[in-house]
Amino acid sequence: MSEFERATAVTPRGDGTYDAVITEGWDIAGNANGGYLIAMAARAMADVVGRPPLSVTGHYLSPGKVGPVTIDVEVVRAGRRMAVVRATMRSLDHGEVLSLLGTFSEQPEPDTVGPSVIDAEPPDLPPFGECVPSGPPVAVAATSGFGQQIHARYHPDDVGFGEGEPSGTALVRGWFEFADHSPVDAFGLLLVVDAFAPVSFNRPEFPVSWAPTLELTAHVRGVPAPGPLRTQFRSRFIQNGMFEEDGEVWDSRGVLVAQSRQLALVPRGPA
Amino acid sequence: MSEFERATAVTPRGDGTYDAVITEGWDIAGNANGGYLIAMAARAMADVVGRPPLSVTGHYLSPGKVGPVTIDVEVVRAGRRMAVVRATMRSLDHGEVLSLLGTFSEQPEPDTVGPSVIDAEPPDLPPFGECVPSGPPVAVAATSGFGQQIHARYHPDDVGFGEGEPSGTALVRGWFEFADHSPVDAFGLLLVVDAFAPVSFNRPEFPVSWAPTLELTAHVRGVPAPGPLRTQFRSRFIQNGMFEEDGEVWDSRGVLVAQSRQLALVPRGPA
Repeated sequence: MSEFERATAVTPRGDGTYDAVITEGWDIAGNANGGYLIAMAARAMADVVGRPPLSVTGHYLSPGKVGPVTIDVEVVRAGRRMAVVRATMRSLDHGEVLSLLGTFSEQPEPDTVGPSVIDAEPPDLPPFGECVPSGPPVAVAATSGFGQQIHARYHPDDVGFGEGEPSGTALVRGWFEFADHSPVDAFGLLLVVDAFAPVSFNRPEFPVSWAPTLELTAHVRGVPAPGPLRTQFRSRFIQNGMFEEDGEVWDSRGVLVAQSRQLALVPRGPA
Repeated sequence: MSEFERATAVTPRGDGTYDAVITEGWDIAGNANGGYLIAMAARAMADVVGRPPLSVTGHYLSPGKVGPVTIDVEVVRAGRRMAVVRATMRSLDHGEVLSLLGTFSEQPEPDTVGPSVIDAEPPDLPPFGECVPSGPPVAVAATSGFGQQIHARYHPDDVGFGEGEPSGTALVRGWFEFADHSPVDAFGLLLVVDAFAPVSFNRPEFPVSWAPTLELTAHVRGVPAPGPLRTQFRSRFIQNGMFEEDGEVWDSRGVLVAQSRQLALVPRGPA
């Protein structure tokens, strides 16, 4: 069992409620990574319908603090191929954490799906070893476990914010793998889409501090081939105190395996 | 009261359940437009928390047929500014139609939100009068009420699919207004993001027929100024029998007022 599997494991009570634990070491400055929380909840949702996530939306209710949680899962409709499921994650000590709605389905067999039309390319990254191991500012990284669990290797052009030199473009690109090199499946992809620093960090108008996500939607678009994943995150509309962040995850074959969009509040606090 | 308001009106029973009617004339070949359904459900959700939609996700369970529906609304959490709400729309005659989850909030006051950074431009469209009034193939349009309720005026370059000459790019651009010229508010935007033909119509690999939406997420990013709206819809990843369709809606000031993404199945049926 991988570290990620262990840290997102869920135990059914048998009535649609699951027990789980927000595990020490998956946090950024004390709050669990948002993708980690969605991945954990999606395990419970998937377990009920026997299918992996295809499209999952999470709305954040409060930061995820270390400790026991319950995940209440409700099947809205289970068809032959697709199942629509909703869930709520609650911390026993801190109240409601996350509300989710998703469609769960196996990826279709390649010979059943017809032609592909791809009008995009994977992000152009230097080799893994030439990308930069740390994203968050040193002060934040030092109090965060999340950076120990994953290898997020940033494009050298996108990481100046750590030294007070934002690139000027709301763009972050990099390689991803789990620190224990375990493979990334559909649940892992739900974490990958939220595993890098907010793209607002690369605009000088905003402090390098927490950008609270209101909502994150991830689409699983394929089953990743082995090897590190290439990611790209970008925002084109920072306005009205909010920004969207669009993510893409590509596998070692150059196949898009996940797409995401989140709506977040621009950071207001001190750097 | 506008035609759209009349056709999406909801009546509270007082216990979180609302009555509404999928109204004749908002369909495409017998199935209600998907954005129309989300807008109707969002009215009930907004009514419960006294705030308009900010981010709404709908997962489609079955096509919306004309007739009475109920919308069951549940407040997950109502904070000072944001409220998270979920809902289910059920047809009295045809069962569950739509499952929704959203965050509802007023758009913030402009002087409270800090700087904007926009890295995009509105779609380049010929004037309204030079765009093309009809999207769907003639056979479909003739049996569809939806086209009577709205003025969707397609970019002449993006509408060849109606004559069997798809443009070759999974892109659709055009102007939108309600046929009765009523203003578009946050609820109207939920319809606008699903008011044009699927972008798969412009790729020769796929038949010009129904592309069932699995999930649609819309972000309301501003309050539209008066006047027709400019829209753009595009897909970059048609693969595994599915495609994402990313939408943008811009107002007459050139301000982005909504963003959307849906995950849909590629059309399989006959044209």
